[in-house]
Amino acid sequence: MSEGRSSRDVRMHGFARRQTVAAALEQLDALLHRLPAEAIPLHAAAGRVLAGAIVSTVDVPGFDRATMDGYAVMADSTEGATPYNRVALSVVGDAMPGSPFSKSCPPGAAVRIMTGAPIPVGCDSVLPAEFVEAEPGSSTRVMAVAVVSPGKNVGRRGEDIVRGATLFEAGRVLRPQDLGVMSSIGHGTVNVIRKPRVRLVITGNELLPAGSMPRDFQITDANGPMLTALAERDGGIVDFPGLVPDEPGAILDALRAGGDVVVVSGGSSVGIEDHAPMLLSEHGALAVHGVAMRPSSPAGFGTLGGALVFLLPGNPVSALCAYDFFAGRAIRALGGRPTAWPYRSTRGILVRKISSPIGRLDYARVRVDNGRVEPLSVSGASVLSSTTRADGFVIVDDDSEGFPAGADVVVWLYE
Amino acid sequence: MSEGRSSRDVRMHGFARRQTVAAALEQLDALLHRLPAEAIPLHAAAGRVLAGAIVSTVDVPGFDRATMDGYAVMADSTEGATPYNRVALSVVGDAMPGSPFSKSCPPGAAVRIMTGAPIPVGCDSVLPAEFVEAEPGSSTRVMAVAVVSPGKNVGRRGEDIVRGATLFEAGRVLRPQDLGVMSSIGHGTVNVIRKPRVRLVITGNELLPAGSMPRDFQITDANGPMLTALAERDGGIVDFPGLVPDEPGAILDALRAGGDVVVVSGGSSVGIEDHAPMLLSEHGALAVHGVAMRPSSPAGFGTLGGALVFLLPGNPVSALCAYDFFAGRAIRALGGRPTAWPYRSTRGILVRKISSPIGRLDYARVRVDNGRVEPLSVSGASVLSSTTRADGFVIVDDDSEGFPAGADVVVWLYE
Repeated sequence: MSEGRSSRDVRMHGFARRQTVAAALEQLDALLHRLPAEAIPLHAAAGRVLAGAIVSTVDVPGFDRATMDGYAVMADSTEGATPYNRVALSVVGDAMPGSPFSKSCPPGAAVRIMTGAPIPVGCDSVLPAEFVEAEPGSSTRVMAVAVVSPGKNVGRRGEDIVRGATLFEAGRVLRPQDLGVMSSIGHGTVNVIRKPRVRLVITGNELLPAGSMPRDFQITDANGPMLTALAERDGGIVDFPGLVPDEPGAILDALRAGGDVVVVSGGSSVGIEDHAPMLLSEHGALAVHGVAMRPSSPAGFGTLGGALVFLLPGNPVSALCAYDFFAGRAIRALGGRPTAWPYRSTRGILVRKISSPIGRLDYARVRVDNGRVEPLSVSGASVLSSTTRADGFVIVDDDSEGFPAGADVVVWLYE
Repeated sequence: MSEGRSSRDVRMHGFARRQTVAAALEQLDALLHRLPAEAIPLHAAAGRVLAGAIVSTVDVPGFDRATMDGYAVMADSTEGATPYNRVALSVVGDAMPGSPFSKSCPPGAAVRIMTGAPIPVGCDSVLPAEFVEAEPGSSTRVMAVAVVSPGKNVGRRGEDIVRGATLFEAGRVLRPQDLGVMSSIGHGTVNVIRKPRVRLVITGNELLPAGSMPRDFQITDANGPMLTALAERDGGIVDFPGLVPDEPGAILDALRAGGDVVVVSGGSSVGIEDHAPMLLSEHGALAVHGVAMRPSSPAGFGTLGGALVFLLPGNPVSALCAYDFFAGRAIRALGGRPTAWPYRSTRGILVRKISSPIGRLDYARVRVDNGRVEPLSVSGASVLSSTTRADGFVIVDDDSEGFPAGADVVVWLYE
């Protein structure tokens, strides 16, 4: 099936030349640059991309602290202590987290201490609570029944983080625990790569806006909700002001309305109703138009003003495929993320062959069941429900004629 | 290292009995139930969990449509056509997407048609544009140079979705393309499982709020930002009103402040400063307190009012571990998600042994480099930066003494 939409003129017979996917990606990558940083609150930074390295200006903890509950002592105060040779310690106070013992602990004395509390001056170790017996009738004396060695059960200043240490490098996608570590060194905000602003331009006179029941000869827009979710998945902030009429003035206005990335769906081919490529060519630069792939062969991209503009066919399967190959890659790269597929891969054994002509890359939807990979029937390949019935897809590169039944193939899993 | 925080009383010597992780999980699962549904806008539904099956009430498309650009005809009007026996067709109009040919197409005639346009009455196929030659000087006549068979290049009504078909089952985590499919059948909103409301209760008199530089004998809260990100990852909506003083009245108020899940960090052990377990026991039900695991042995959970309450040790590594084992599992289950770890797993060869006593489950942080799995040194195991230096963790079950060097182990990858 050709996806060219055209009529009434010489351009009806298709693209002069379709580029390979590899050549198109090379041209795309030359247009990509990482966006600048922005400061955001730490609690909102999970999953964001760090803009610069994080170096600690403090030790964590900033003091020696108990790692057990018990009694802080100078170790040699317990010398010789056993259950049969109990050694008396005079209890001179308490040390709690956030509430240290404020004086100095003399030799032969002990300070009751809780895990996390600062080690008092005059102590070098913590005798665990289970090695201490209460002295009946006394609240100021306990009996050690074991020795402790110097430094035992003490977490040293800087044990977690040493001042001057580089904790994270630029480009890291922040994990929940990274936020904890950054908080512990005093960061309330964090510099991350700004999210790309993605404007959706959905055209098609046959389209009703999402939320409408399809009726008569109109269909309800599937691409707006789908592309919104895809672009958000890839770290974009989506602006989708609504359907745009299939007319040059309206489309040009939409192309010029700003954003780091403009994603156009519909009217991307070579017919006279396909305004977007011509507008992009006239008012900006059309870098690639027509790619040797199936689906999505009429896909293209270029630049207009400061924006990267992606032309996606209106057919939703083609729009998904062209988005994933080109627009998604750009959105991820602008936001500092890896350009690789945002899908997990698995391997499996193909139960039926996948054929594809040399010179064209194919995007074949498959089901995966217990290591068996089953291509969906070709007849439904152009409909969006093929991508919801599928578990993922297999890519047949343009230098391959496909895979025979029984081949061990890589499957990229939708999720 | 014991994580018990206690002092000054008989409870200082620890838990009467620690449950196994398996026993604790069994008790937890008995408390879990899926939350009810809520209707949300379709464009916000990616990643949400479908509350009920989706059955289409319409065919998509709702009409037969062209799958190529060309000329809609009755197939037998092209009978015998070849480049040497061109067959004339009179062009009686145009059919565009959203703008159908409104009359009937007589035999021997053709309607110019674009991909996606409705097939006119009186036509049964589309002759592709490349098999039609213009007739010089005529705008109402073209010449067919090939035959077309009935039904060719026509996408049938219901080709994508048939009225009455079940498209998605309840419990599906919605993908971007699922939103497209739901939009195409007229859904502007979708019923999904409500997100659990998660209240964080972070206690500790030694703590400064996130955004403060640590100073003197105080440390800056790491758990608030970390647990916020973890609970959001698992589909929760987090309410973290700020640090709570280590005093029973304040903690009880916080426990009672509502939410589907309350996550308490700090004061979870058996010491007199550990108020949360006692409060939960007195005012609600303490189902589990003390688990045979390392770290996080003082972890517990129970119920108070309508909320599930999780007691996490204040130590951030323990808090992370106890969160992932218990609280995260509950948040995922309430929201209708799989209870399994939200981490990808990989396998690798251990380069150094991991030891663990029988009867205790261990959570060992590791680095993974090219299939080699290296345990992080035990000395830094209690500090949060061990979880940011690590790539993931290995679980040693409580019936295992660990793994020797060279063992093939499963690693759960932090991301």
